[in-house]
Amino acid sequence: MNRLSNWVTITQWVPLYDRQKFVADATAAAVVTLMLIPQSLAYAQLAGMPLEAGLYASMLPLVAYALFGSSSTLAVGPAAVTSLMTASALAGLPASNGAYALMAALLATMSGLMLLAMGAFRLGFLANFLSHPVISGFVSASGILIAASQLKHLLGIGLSGQTLPQMLSSLWQHASAPHTWTTLIGLSVLAFLILCRRHLKRGLLRLGLGHFVADVLTKAAPVMALAVTALLAWSLSLDEAGVRLVGPVPAGLPSLSWPWPDADMWPHMGALAQAALLISLVGFVESVSVGQSLAARRRERIDPDAELRALGASNLAAGVSGGFPVTGGFSRSVVNFDAGARTPAAGIYTATGLVMAALFLTPLLRYLPQATLAATIVVAVLSLVDLGVFKRTWAYSRADFAALAITFALTLLVGVEAGLIAGVGTSIVLYLWRSSRPHIAIVGQVPGTEHYRNVLRHQVITDPQVLGLRVDESLYFANARYLEDQVAHAVANGPAIRHVILQCNAINDIDASALESLETIAQRLKEAGIALHLSEVKGPVMDRLRRSSFLQHLGGEVFLSHHQAVTELSQLNKSASM
Amino acid sequence: MNRLSNWVTITQWVPLYDRQKFVADATAAAVVTLMLIPQSLAYAQLAGMPLEAGLYASMLPLVAYALFGSSSTLAVGPAAVTSLMTASALAGLPASNGAYALMAALLATMSGLMLLAMGAFRLGFLANFLSHPVISGFVSASGILIAASQLKHLLGIGLSGQTLPQMLSSLWQHASAPHTWTTLIGLSVLAFLILCRRHLKRGLLRLGLGHFVADVLTKAAPVMALAVTALLAWSLSLDEAGVRLVGPVPAGLPSLSWPWPDADMWPHMGALAQAALLISLVGFVESVSVGQSLAARRRERIDPDAELRALGASNLAAGVSGGFPVTGGFSRSVVNFDAGARTPAAGIYTATGLVMAALFLTPLLRYLPQATLAATIVVAVLSLVDLGVFKRTWAYSRADFAALAITFALTLLVGVEAGLIAGVGTSIVLYLWRSSRPHIAIVGQVPGTEHYRNVLRHQVITDPQVLGLRVDESLYFANARYLEDQVAHAVANGPAIRHVILQCNAINDIDASALESLETIAQRLKEAGIALHLSEVKGPVMDRLRRSSFLQHLGGEVFLSHHQAVTELSQLNKSASM
Repeated sequence: MNRLSNWVTITQWVPLYDRQKFVADATAAAVVTLMLIPQSLAYAQLAGMPLEAGLYASMLPLVAYALFGSSSTLAVGPAAVTSLMTASALAGLPASNGAYALMAALLATMSGLMLLAMGAFRLGFLANFLSHPVISGFVSASGILIAASQLKHLLGIGLSGQTLPQMLSSLWQHASAPHTWTTLIGLSVLAFLILCRRHLKRGLLRLGLGHFVADVLTKAAPVMALAVTALLAWSLSLDEAGVRLVGPVPAGLPSLSWPWPDADMWPHMGALAQAALLISLVGFVESVSVGQSLAARRRERIDPDAELRALGASNLAAGVSGGFPVTGGFSRSVVNFDAGARTPAAGIYTATGLVMAALFLTPLLRYLPQATLAATIVVAVLSLVDLGVFKRTWAYSRADFAALAITFALTLLVGVEAGLIAGVGTSIVLYLWRSSRPHIAIVGQVPGTEHYRNVLRHQVITDPQVLGLRVDESLYFANARYLEDQVAHAVANGPAIRHVILQCNAINDIDASALESLETIAQRLKEAGIALHLSEVKGPVMDRLRRSSFLQHLGGEVFLSHHQAVTELSQLNKSASM
Repeated sequence: MNRLSNWVTITQWVPLYDRQKFVADATAAAVVTLMLIPQSLAYAQLAGMPLEAGLYASMLPLVAYALFGSSSTLAVGPAAVTSLMTASALAGLPASNGAYALMAALLATMSGLMLLAMGAFRLGFLANFLSHPVISGFVSASGILIAASQLKHLLGIGLSGQTLPQMLSSLWQHASAPHTWTTLIGLSVLAFLILCRRHLKRGLLRLGLGHFVADVLTKAAPVMALAVTALLAWSLSLDEAGVRLVGPVPAGLPSLSWPWPDADMWPHMGALAQAALLISLVGFVESVSVGQSLAARRRERIDPDAELRALGASNLAAGVSGGFPVTGGFSRSVVNFDAGARTPAAGIYTATGLVMAALFLTPLLRYLPQATLAATIVVAVLSLVDLGVFKRTWAYSRADFAALAITFALTLLVGVEAGLIAGVGTSIVLYLWRSSRPHIAIVGQVPGTEHYRNVLRHQVITDPQVLGLRVDESLYFANARYLEDQVAHAVANGPAIRHVILQCNAINDIDASALESLETIAQRLKEAGIALHLSEVKGPVMDRLRRSSFLQHLGGEVFLSHHQAVTELSQLNKSASM
């Protein structure tokens, strides 16, 4: 029972639900719905889906999140980056129109199942592979790609492709002048939305309107742009002038069905699964960081494992209801939070609002110019592009800059999946490279004390027959062979050495590779007539060494303190040479 | 000039060469040549190459290594595991007989170029990715695969495939009784070689022979087996009885030519390059560990970068002279060392010996039964299989065991490349997983001192408004989000908290991801009305933080000692609440 309420988080807040919370949640839901109508349609266009799918992808997933999620204000649905990734994953696949939507639903379903599996096996740490530089580079490049892909709709020119080179070459091959009316609408809406975003709220406040009313009016600006341009297109018959309109959008609700690949899709399931994994990880990272930011403002906490389950359930819900991959979106969640949402019920009310929109508003969308949606998208993604991060990262760390630049460049030039994978690979390789050369110091005795310090930095006493080495890092596969190298080097330079003592006070762990290296070192030293000893081994490391046969074969001894080791071994040498 | 002599290591030892060294090297070369004739032929058979290619691959590469290598006794040439990897890489490719040899030469050339590039860019650390458990699992599984693949020749049965399931299914489909004569020869040679290896030397010593003579005779046992079985096959016309013989082997030396892919090979170059990379890494690891073991016995040192160059040159030499990928082999190097080789000149003499063999002995090989070579291979690889490593690794570390078991199983069941790649992936994922949850302790003051310790382990004083956290690990992308989590958790549990101090004395590095996380933490805390402070930041870490804008946005302060931080902040709170 306890377990159940841990998982089905709705059982935690429903018993405490009251009228006050209802009013807060319902108000927030109204504001979010206003904002989500254009946004959902726009992201559906970005993902290459029929527009109604954008609405569908914001209904059931919100309910699913309300059942299982741990954030009180996160709002899930289509988001810019995951929609781009969806379009990119499906672009390469040969698919008729119906098959495209089916593949998108499959992508959402797979992503949902993967997130659920990650939740069940507590694999949320996998998201750590996406380091910050990789995410920054990826999101900035995605923003540029998204904005570039919308030029087609914004200017009415021929443009296709998923990467910058593809887009440029298609522009080169099918060069055509921008379509006047389309460009006029596109750029006007763009300018209007940017102005609203920057100045509308302040202007309204100055006019004496209340804070809340000003806020709602600002949020409603995109809906206004939709309404005005649709009205214009209808009254002036702009479609006859060559402006591309959205066209008929079916009214009604999605039918529920488990998506199943057709026979000819099976060969593409591997590629689809890889895309689903990347979408899952990116979506999870985005969702968790949005959720944590908002939770922190109220001193709440979100549970990454619960988020995996909730996001998994949301994507499954999107998959079975004709949607496409969803995640916790930044803008919608912030709006929900700012509008005062108190519980996940706000999400359920928002879903209800979108059901109404799908039932009654879709006929009105017929005359909506695609340029209006494109402008909505461009405004949304401009904030994703942060070129300042290049300068900051360069100043801070060259290795991190390399990961950032590689991710950014490959995402733009080769594709979103290649960019992400190369970025993750680079991060890991650079990390292992940095940690593959731990600091190893030859130590000697500080005169008159029992302390031992680096011979290069301090005036210390050393015994030519007894070599003390301190390793300032845990030993594992990436640095184990370096230790072999360094010991060999130190011994080759000290022909008188009879004993080597490794001071282990900074070693928190020794993995099997490092254990083998230690055994190899001991063996090689023994063949050269040198004994290997350890000093100041930490308790847990010692416990583990006892489970191996290393200590039997060590030959040398394990000393509690480095001073004791040096004293006893020097004594031994003296008596041996007498 | 100095640079040149660093690279072309032959310039270091030739000026010091004298008669004594010549005698030692020439004697060792004679023993190694005796051993290499059957071994080279056998590994050529294993790699699926014409037998003479085995001799070719042991000529020029030895000379190339002598020019650039840093070990005085390492002997390069075809080795068991790299030969298996060669056969496996080429098995999937559609190739006529001539094309197969060309592809093998291409593989060696690519591998040579990759090793040279790794040497030039000091990328030797890439070999660290092959952790010990991965190497152990891979080598054991390879040994089993090699032995199984030779059953075909040893028993004269139909058997094909590169993995255990493929071999079993081919055995099932083409089940045939072992061929009597073939089996008789195969098992006799096997028994003879095993007996010689275990008992011959001791027996000869007991007969009163000198140590050196006994050693040479033991080393010559495989040559004897070759001679006797070839004589038997010739005199009894065993080929007419169905025993498969080696057949005509062309006498003479390889022609030199740069291998270049035919037009129809280009689509396979990607797969070939991947195989070449894996062969390079495995070969390098094997070579360096053999080289280091031998060098240590003489208190010498080998230089991993020089080894990369020398191994690269050796593989290039193998590629242009009709050979296939080579590496520093364990058995041949040990024999060279034990026989008293002093300088790399021994390798040049061995190459000369093999030239003689290629010129004059090849006609005698015609009647050699394939079963004899198969027995030679099986004896050589039996020592590779070490099943005890499973028990030892299980006892030592479950994570390392997982990497070992996955590598072993996938190598046997799916293939050598899949096994290696999965093993490397598992090692990295498990390492990042282990390091993704660093130890983070809430610390309090040990009464009457300026020391701060974990509240869970010691009786300490804490201030409900000031939270002290100590992080016992460097911060990087794999553990940065965990820190966000833990700080959020600690703050959510302490409603009175006004200040959080991170005690940073154990943090050696903070990468860009962790910096972002710290900024996020500071930002979130600020929004909740809490200030973030740092204490005891190490010098290099502080230098780096100063290069970012973190310290400006921190809000809180950086204290030299944790005690100072706690005292000042507690004071501040008291005066504020007064």
